[in-house]
Amino acid sequence: MSTPSLAGGPAGPDALRPLVDTVLDALHEGAAARVGPLPPGGPAAVTAHVRRTLAAAPAPAPAHAAPAGHGTAPPETGAIPRTGTGEHEALTTLTRLLAYGAADPAHPHCAAHLHTPPLALAAAADLAAAALNPSLDSWDQAPAAAALEESVTRALATEAYPTGPDPDALVTTGGTEANQLALLLARERHGRLGATVQTVCGAGTHHSVHRAAWLLGLPEPVTVPAPDGTLDLTALDAVLSGLRGPLLVTATAGTTDTGRIDPLTEIADLCDAHGADLHVDAAYGGPLLFSETRRHLLAGLDRARTVTFDLHKLGWQPLAAGLLAVPDRALLQPLAHTADYLNADDDTEAGLPDLLGRSLRTSRRPDIFKIAVTLRALGRTGLGALVDRVCDLAQHLADLVEKRPRLELHERPALSTVLFRPAGADDTGVAAIRRTLLTEGRAVLGRARGADGRLWLKATLLNPHTTPDDLAQILNLVEGSTTR
Amino acid sequence: MSTPSLAGGPAGPDALRPLVDTVLDALHEGAAARVGPLPPGGPAAVTAHVRRTLAAAPAPAPAHAAPAGHGTAPPETGAIPRTGTGEHEALTTLTRLLAYGAADPAHPHCAAHLHTPPLALAAAADLAAAALNPSLDSWDQAPAAAALEESVTRALATEAYPTGPDPDALVTTGGTEANQLALLLARERHGRLGATVQTVCGAGTHHSVHRAAWLLGLPEPVTVPAPDGTLDLTALDAVLSGLRGPLLVTATAGTTDTGRIDPLTEIADLCDAHGADLHVDAAYGGPLLFSETRRHLLAGLDRARTVTFDLHKLGWQPLAAGLLAVPDRALLQPLAHTADYLNADDDTEAGLPDLLGRSLRTSRRPDIFKIAVTLRALGRTGLGALVDRVCDLAQHLADLVEKRPRLELHERPALSTVLFRPAGADDTGVAAIRRTLLTEGRAVLGRARGADGRLWLKATLLNPHTTPDDLAQILNLVEGSTTR
Repeated sequence: MSTPSLAGGPAGPDALRPLVDTVLDALHEGAAARVGPLPPGGPAAVTAHVRRTLAAAPAPAPAHAAPAGHGTAPPETGAIPRTGTGEHEALTTLTRLLAYGAADPAHPHCAAHLHTPPLALAAAADLAAAALNPSLDSWDQAPAAAALEESVTRALATEAYPTGPDPDALVTTGGTEANQLALLLARERHGRLGATVQTVCGAGTHHSVHRAAWLLGLPEPVTVPAPDGTLDLTALDAVLSGLRGPLLVTATAGTTDTGRIDPLTEIADLCDAHGADLHVDAAYGGPLLFSETRRHLLAGLDRARTVTFDLHKLGWQPLAAGLLAVPDRALLQPLAHTADYLNADDDTEAGLPDLLGRSLRTSRRPDIFKIAVTLRALGRTGLGALVDRVCDLAQHLADLVEKRPRLELHERPALSTVLFRPAGADDTGVAAIRRTLLTEGRAVLGRARGADGRLWLKATLLNPHTTPDDLAQILNLVEGSTTR
Repeated sequence: MSTPSLAGGPAGPDALRPLVDTVLDALHEGAAARVGPLPPGGPAAVTAHVRRTLAAAPAPAPAHAAPAGHGTAPPETGAIPRTGTGEHEALTTLTRLLAYGAADPAHPHCAAHLHTPPLALAAAADLAAAALNPSLDSWDQAPAAAALEESVTRALATEAYPTGPDPDALVTTGGTEANQLALLLARERHGRLGATVQTVCGAGTHHSVHRAAWLLGLPEPVTVPAPDGTLDLTALDAVLSGLRGPLLVTATAGTTDTGRIDPLTEIADLCDAHGADLHVDAAYGGPLLFSETRRHLLAGLDRARTVTFDLHKLGWQPLAAGLLAVPDRALLQPLAHTADYLNADDDTEAGLPDLLGRSLRTSRRPDIFKIAVTLRALGRTGLGALVDRVCDLAQHLADLVEKRPRLELHERPALSTVLFRPAGADDTGVAAIRRTLLTEGRAVLGRARGADGRLWLKATLLNPHTTPDDLAQILNLVEGSTTR
């Protein structure tokens, strides 16, 4: 076999073109074969289909004797055939498999999670990042990508901190890593003084805050009740009064369960009164900043010491597209790190930018590139219109639920999430409806506990092409599933 | 402006096709304009070019009054214009910028780092992942992707652990995260018994091991000398004898500086004798397993409790493509984690796969997809041929250096890294040559300390299309730079 072509260099695009055509054809075929938002049959059927496909790779050549020195040679598996099937066969077979077996967020009946349907624009931009493969751990692997990241992260951080002294943002693998970095920065800031920071969060806080505390060796966060879905201010005041030592309050702007936004200004006031630091997880709600009419919902955001964003939710980016913003890049200093081969002192003094302190990763894909292309193509107005569109869709879905006597609405939506359930259904019934629709390949809905402690169906609306009729059909599917 | 198209669904491919064409055209134009492996002028020139390009976005519409509620509106920046420039303008302008301003690993004179030129095949496959956007934190966001990951990670882990009881691997953002997970698993295993694990590593160990210990709140690793570039066994024995409590030895199969491989079998014997656990960082050398003729270099690998792989090095994948392999998936149990909206107990009992314990991330891109396509297309034989090709190129470069009296070779290459320098140059001179070639846009070479403690130029050969003539030209550039 001749040496396979590379994606980069002047010849890369010509090598990519037929391969990309193959991928696009297979994406279409897989999606067309699926019909619904996900394949029917549930995990058993999908797993069997995947294993059959992998096993059907052309039969391997007769096994060689195991070479000496590394024990037994591994058994032949379909996943790694001895002899390859070739570029187009592999792309066609596995892309069809992936597309057929997707829970496709571009299907209007796929609305379980903060699982965005990416813009074609952003997916196309991401191809350039993959082809050139800049790695943001040193300037000499990513000259333009590093400069672009610097400008675009600064611009995004300035959205959160319009009056910050020197706004900056780190690019992360998602909200989870951004929250982790926020806790790490707090740990280091206080750890230098020999103190251990205690995290305080609401009952609706994302699980990643708890996991980050565990990862970083910090005490388990103290949880404050959130009876109506947002952090209770009286309870927070009491908790902060009862704790000693450095405190980090994490508030949420758009909870995963209901999309509710904590009262940021009031929380910031309490943090000031108690000398606590504030982190805001705006992984979901952050892009409200782009909406002229909804920007006010984030009032107080700029009083946080750190803010989590996640543009693979309301930013319509393919994974990953997380950010942690700070009002002053000096706050990022605890991440400074040296490795002689990447940022030796004499190279830094000679003017080569030092990138290692911008992530805990070393090799790092330029996820900022697709974001930069999207921001430029759509502008603040275009992005804001998308945000408004899906929030309006949520209001419309809530209207529809309210008009159907056999359905019950949890509350008017705060963002783009709607919780509803068949009137009178118990938790077991709600969970079963969700799984039935999944297994039948008809709809992908989520689940969440409501303010009443009961289980609700959750529709997280992120698809700006969804129509009112699509929403009605989702409700029809739920009602149909209930009556069987 | 109409709502921008999505990448998914049956209509996605038709939306993607013209946008991808625009990207491929711009990639070609940018690469053709660059000429060399990176643009000339150094960081100042590249940064100025990026800022000019961003600032040249069409002028924004007259500023609106700042909406109430969030303080001052952010200033207009080129990075986020008020009104977008449109999909094709943004893709063309920024892709050209990225390509022109790349340090393109597909250029044969770009050989500084473990910064691979991706296969066109793998970059094309990654487009499917971006378009469909499966997220591997729950089955209902990634039905086929989850099943594919399960099969392919098991197959890859079986390459490392052919006789392991139940081999498995976690997909990571790179070797850094894989090393971090290895230390975390060790921390948790011993932490349950109330003990703190002490990491012991060689002087050539990747910096990420030290950073992981810091992140996880573990003691700073004890460093064992590596006078010839590999971990010294006598010194390791002495260090292990002098320490109390649980120990984790991290060995390296392919150091970043020289590509040397630690004596794994002997280290495993010492670990057994002292009751220490063994982790092997095979981020660089791991794919030697695919080479019939070089597989033996990793003898002893399967005695490690955890092994780091990184297929965005010798696997020719675009970022990210890291893995942490274990011989028994039961060893991953400390990562088990629950979030009611993703893996509620009743959903898990009803047969929905629980994915949260397979990563510390929550949302997670299916990086396994491009890997799966590459493994199927090339097979073990095809990948092994690529590994052999770049290792052979390194031997050839070493031959060329030895034949040139004005150059000095550090040692015969162990893998695909060659350290050399102009005879008689001091450290300052070596560093200056590297920076001169970078600033002139002629070559991207790395730097490393040799066994003698002096600074050497480093050529890391990962491009299988590089020719002997390309290698001679690299040496000509270095010699030419020396004489000026």
